[in-house]
Order: sequence, then structure tokens, then C-alpha cells
Amino acid sequence: MASVDVPVALLGYGTVGAAVHRLLVESADDIERATGHRLRVTKALVRDVSRQRDGSPEPGVLTDDFAEIRAADAAVVAEVMGGVEPAGDYVLELLGAGRHVVTANKQLVARRGAELFEAASASGVQLRFEASVCAAIPVIKVLREALVVSNVHRVLGIVNGTTNFVLGAMSGGRSYAEALAEAQRLGYAEADPTDDVSGADAAAKMAILATVAFGSRVAYDDVAVAGIEGVTPAQVAAARALEMSVKLVGAATLVGDRYDVRVGPALVDGRHPLATVDGAFNAVMLQGDAIREITLEGPGAGGIETASAVVADMVSVVGTTGTGFLQNDPCWRSLERLPAGELRSPFYLHAEVDDRPGVLARVAGALAEHGVSVARLVQQTNDDGASLHIVTHEAPAGEVGAALDELDALRETRGRPATLRVISDRGVEGLGWA
Amino acid sequence: MASVDVPVALLGYGTVGAAVHRLLVESADDIERATGHRLRVTKALVRDVSRQRDGSPEPGVLTDDFAEIRAADAAVVAEVMGGVEPAGDYVLELLGAGRHVVTANKQLVARRGAELFEAASASGVQLRFEASVCAAIPVIKVLREALVVSNVHRVLGIVNGTTNFVLGAMSGGRSYAEALAEAQRLGYAEADPTDDVSGADAAAKMAILATVAFGSRVAYDDVAVAGIEGVTPAQVAAARALEMSVKLVGAATLVGDRYDVRVGPALVDGRHPLATVDGAFNAVMLQGDAIREITLEGPGAGGIETASAVVADMVSVVGTTGTGFLQNDPCWRSLERLPAGELRSPFYLHAEVDDRPGVLARVAGALAEHGVSVARLVQQTNDDGASLHIVTHEAPAGEVGAALDELDALRETRGRPATLRVISDRGVEGLGWA
Repeated sequence: MASVDVPVALLGYGTVGAAVHRLLVESADDIERATGHRLRVTKALVRDVSRQRDGSPEPGVLTDDFAEIRAADAAVVAEVMGGVEPAGDYVLELLGAGRHVVTANKQLVARRGAELFEAASASGVQLRFEASVCAAIPVIKVLREALVVSNVHRVLGIVNGTTNFVLGAMSGGRSYAEALAEAQRLGYAEADPTDDVSGADAAAKMAILATVAFGSRVAYDDVAVAGIEGVTPAQVAAARALEMSVKLVGAATLVGDRYDVRVGPALVDGRHPLATVDGAFNAVMLQGDAIREITLEGPGAGGIETASAVVADMVSVVGTTGTGFLQNDPCWRSLERLPAGELRSPFYLHAEVDDRPGVLARVAGALAEHGVSVARLVQQTNDDGASLHIVTHEAPAGEVGAALDELDALRETRGRPATLRVISDRGVEGLGWA
Repeated sequence: MASVDVPVALLGYGTVGAAVHRLLVESADDIERATGHRLRVTKALVRDVSRQRDGSPEPGVLTDDFAEIRAADAAVVAEVMGGVEPAGDYVLELLGAGRHVVTANKQLVARRGAELFEAASASGVQLRFEASVCAAIPVIKVLREALVVSNVHRVLGIVNGTTNFVLGAMSGGRSYAEALAEAQRLGYAEADPTDDVSGADAAAKMAILATVAFGSRVAYDDVAVAGIEGVTPAQVAAARALEMSVKLVGAATLVGDRYDVRVGPALVDGRHPLATVDGAFNAVMLQGDAIREITLEGPGAGGIETASAVVADMVSVVGTTGTGFLQNDPCWRSLERLPAGELRSPFYLHAEVDDRPGVLARVAGALAEHGVSVARLVQQTNDDGASLHIVTHEAPAGEVGAALDELDALRETRGRPATLRVISDRGVEGLGWA
């Protein structure tokens, strides 16, 4: 097969952009073996052309003028600049002009996916976005190409390394503030960690994963989000007593023809494949008809890791151009959101109660009245009362909430009882904040 | 995009073949969305046309005459009959006749891969084989398409569910014979379990994975194989004492421009991602430059799981025909085997010794002489002596073997000391039998 020289362009030349360029140069032979093509960066959009860069590209490649990117004869453009604007308008314009685009931008795909895919379809070009979710973990490719016939109905993910690191440090005994400070010191958390600890980053990723898995648009605002700011050392300790751990879990569930997508702290059973995802790593579990469940684990962030996913997408574009294969919008139907109260899950409940006869019976009675049955219970006696840690069997979130209100009203309970969803043994359970 | 009707054929119509047919029918819409094509089984080769089958295909589809398959106008043929012959000759002939082939046959790919890929290249057709390794876990697609630029230099796998189940049951206290009997009762092991327990099944899979990962042919006979027949309850118990577990691990390692591929029981550190792979599940960890490590876990066997991988390959063939993308032989270089003694790994050593002063010093001295340093040691006193369980830092297998000979010659040691490779924390270590 004769080698074909293929010009490509970059939007952005920061850590990821420079790594994409380096990989394209260093792996040119690998790419040619896979596709018969050699990819060469001919233009890269930057804010400041004069800034000193490690391993800068040849003269004339960097430009601060988007018109030069538009005019460049690039077969594929990789968007690695980040931010919803102006990246979104640039991508939209490039797709409209018939350019294939690869993006690493989760907020862009989660917030403006609908119009971007429409533009791509109209022009008959591809929009790929592997790098927008979990960096080098090829979960989008696996969902779209390997699991075409698997009817994936559930996606569970630990898709934010910062919060996973912080919660891991808390399980080692640190407070939330100490753990976050350590993550910042080690470079796992930014100076302003809001986007990570609030769950916003994970929510964007889960929106994209749910869209691809279910074939129906799930935008950022369709995700129920809770962060880890409220996780207490007491919850972390209770989880350990139950042989579980607290993790920020994203869960996308298809229930009939309605969906539920949520991100929040949850208790993960120690025997669950997601329980051992350590530190800044990410993992995504896909559950479907023909496959039962497949879990992918790896580094979910990092410049070179993200760049490797961008390059793999560019290679896939070049390798499948003109075939019509998988260049279409992943959405083909329009599902409704499931009312949150109907989502079933096992739950963890924590209540501080008076330590006297009959309390346990009244608590169990309140749960039973709402059809919530107890799977495990740990009772710890304190100086002046008792802590009840309960794991329930699967129950609708609405019923658990109602039972909780009733517990709250008992005169033996002190303060509002707390609840977390539970991911238990491989399978059916839901999770995330109620 | 107008839908195109695409005739396909099957070699074999057993559990997997019937499941492929069912998935093609039930998922016809999904496949059309992905590729613009509808795949329809027009011919299927069976031994006995008259045999009663669940969900039999329409009249005229089943045939016992290969000439009818050859004559059929199939765009893709799926080989799901198993066995090296006559499957291999059929596939060779079909590739030669310009038919794309998808196979689920690990022994065929591991033993006759070279000539099959040569025939495919000569005809300009694709030979895909995702289902030949770990059923529905899309490790071949990930290696070939997502990790094109990742320089994967190490593949670790738990790629045989039968042995994983048996070893798991042994860690629950059963003997090898009891655990095997239980696996047979539950359908996880065949009446004749030789292919699984000897490591032969895992070796074929590791040969294929190494070939794809390293781009150099690794045939079945190039794999060093040990089975689990010799694993003792004492080893399993010692592993537990060290917070490890005994698993049958496949390891393919690239060292410079030489490779080592082996299958054998090894001790897996409890914190390693492979440690939690349960029961009949499989997992494969890929380590490379840009990706650090990516682990894929899921069901590694089963009719519908295997069929879903076959169908995904058929979809990929149809979706990429004519592009030249990834239809070539995965091999592009010819690496040499690394001499086994040079492969570095941490090791577990077990020696029964007299319990008297100076023994530990002499054992440690013998190890030190060969540059083998001790990372962890557990000493258990028995009625009439002591058991030493040692985990070493990484060392070449040859040096560990020489140290072992020396230990064997000490008059304080009783019987031949035993050794197993260790997979420790994420990263660099080797494993498998010495």
C-alpha cells in the first residue's frame, strides 16, 4: 500500500497539543502500518505565537489566527485547546467546512454535542471524542465498535481521579481538608479544585458515556450531581467497618425506555471490581446483554495519556474515511429521564440513636413499612447513645427517602439520618446520592 | 445512507454459531446504524444437516458441503467450528478466494496464524480474531486500534476462567482435586480438563496477544507453559499469609528487541488489579509508554459472549472494507526469544528448614551471593522445623535458580525449595514459572 501524506491541524498547543505532535512524529511508522498514511501537523492554533515552548514545531506551523486553520488543507483537526468557547464555534465551523474533527473536550461534547454532531452529519464528516472521557482508556471505541450488539444498559464509572485520590487518602485516616491539600501538593488537584470535588467533571464524562451507551442525548444538565465536599471521616470509617469504601461513582442506568444518570459519593462493596481502583486511576464498567459486564481501568488523565487517545482517534478517522462506518451521531432515539425516586438501589443508612430497648425495632419498623429490608447492620455504642449503620436490599430511592423522613421524626433519633447509595456485588444495583 | 444487504456465511452452527445468527437477526438495526449494512446469514456449514437445533435457520441455509460455502457470495465468513483441522484449510481457502474471515478459534490463530495472514494479505482481505481471545473482552481491537502509538511492552493476563475458578476455590480451603471436581460440577471445567489445567488454552491466547502487542509472530510453541496441577494447598496458604493469591498468569514481555511469553501459576499481590479477578472472569493488563497501563476485565468465555465478539468483528469488517485500515498482518518485525534465565521478576521462595541458629543467615547468604535480595519473609515454626516463605526483589530467573540450587545443597534444607514468580504492585515485575 503506497504511503499517503496527510496534513493535520491542531487547535491548541499546550501539554496535550504538544504531546499529540510528538506522538505523531515518533509513531509515524506505527500509524503508517495501521492506515497506510503519514500524519503531519501543518498548522496549530495558539494564543501567543512568540511564547517559548519545549520541542516547538517548525517555523510557520504555529499561528494565532483561526483563519489560517480554516484555510489549511487539513484532513483532520484535533481540538485540544479546552473550554467551551471559542473551541465550540471553531469546531462547528470546521465540521461545517467538511473537516473531520477529533476533540479531547468533555465540557464541549457534553454541552454542545447535539449541534456538533448535527453539523458533522450534514457535512458527512466524523467527530470523534475518545479523549474527552478517561484519557487513554478506550471506552468510547469499545462502546461504539466492540459492543455494537450488546445493548449496554448500565455504565458505572470512577471517572475522576482527583476525588478518587482524596477519598482514598481519607480512608487512610485524613480529614477531607487534609486529603485535598495532599492531592494539591502532589499535583492531583488544581489550586481551585471545584470542578473535580463538586462532581462537575465526572458529570460531563457520564453524560457522554450515557449518550453513547444508550444512543440518546444526555446533556450535562441531565445529570444529577453531588460532590464529595460533604463526605465525613465517620462515613469513611463506617464504610470500612462494612468492608466497603466511599468513592465518587458515576452511574448511568437504562430502565425500560427511561434513563437515569447521576454522580455522587457511594459505598462500593470491597469485592466489586470498582473497589480496587486506586489513587488517580479511572475505571468504567459496562453492563449489557451479551457481555454481562466489561470493566476498563487505567489512567484517566495526563497529557501524554490524553494525547494517545487523540492520536488513536485521528488514526481511526484516517483509517475509516469514506466508509460511513461510525461517523454518525451516536444518538438515534430520544429517551426520557426516570423520576429520581423510582431508581432502585441498595442503600447505606446512618442514624445516631438513643441506646435503649425498642429503638432498633422502631427503626426496622419504619424501614419495613416502606418495603425497605435490611441486608447488613452494624451497631456501635457511644458514650451516650448508639450509631446504626445499615445496608438495605435494593429499594426505590423514593421509598428509602420516605422511610428516612419517618426515622427523622422518631424521638429516639438524633439529627437527620444520612444515606448513601451502595454498589454491591457484580450486578443489578444502583448507586449515587439519592 | 442507503441500507445495503450483505450476505454472510458461518463455518459451524453450534452454540457460538447459533448465537451469532441470533445476534445478527436481533441486532440488525443496531448494525445498520453502525455500518449502513444489514448482515444476513445465507449459508452455514454443519456436520449433520438433519440434526434438530433450537432456533434453526431457514431451509437451505444449513449445508454439510463446504463447496456450497465457497460458492456462496458471502462478504464475510465467520469460522466458529473450532479445531485446527479442517477449520484451518477452510479458512485458508476462503481467504485465498477473496473472502474476509472472522474467527473465534485461538488454536488456529496461534498455530497457523502466519500462513493465514499471508493469504489474507495476498488477497487484500481482512482476517479478524477478536473472539479467539477472552470472548467479549475487546482486547484485540483495543491493542490494534486504540493503542496504535502506545508501544505496548508488556501484557499480563488471567486468560483462563477454569483455572481461575479452581485456584479461587483452593484459596477457600479445598484441595486441587476437590476444587476441580466443583468446577466440573458447575460447568466451569470440561470432563477432560487437560487443555485448561495444563495451561495450553492460556498459552494459545497469550501467543495471540503477544503477536498483536509486539508486532512479531509468537506461535503456540514459543510460549513457556506450566499448568496448575502442581499447585499445593500449602502454596495457596502461604500466598494468603503474604496477602497475595495464586493465579494462573500469562505474561508477555518485550525486553529490548527480544520477547518472553509464558504461562504459569504465580503469586499476585493483593493490591494488583489482577488480584480481584474472580471466578471464571478474565482480565488483561496492557502496559505501554503513553498509556502506563490499561486493564480490561470481563467474562472470558461463553457462547453468547464469544458470539458478540464475532459479530463485532463482522461489523468492523463491513464497516472498514476498502480502506486498507487494519486488515494487514499484525506482524511487521521478527523478534527473538529472550533466554528464560534473563527474564527479571520478583520471586516467591519456599523452603522447609531445620529450626536452629544460623539457618536464616545461611539461606540469606546463598541468596545474596547471587544478587537476590529479600523483600518480605514469613517464618512459620512447625513441630520439627520451620517453613521459610520469602518474597525477593526483582532478580533474573537464572540467578534465582542458581541460588535455589545452593539452598537445596545446604544440609539444613529439607527437600527441594520451591519457587513461583510474583506479580507485585503496578508495574515492572515479571511472573510465571521459572
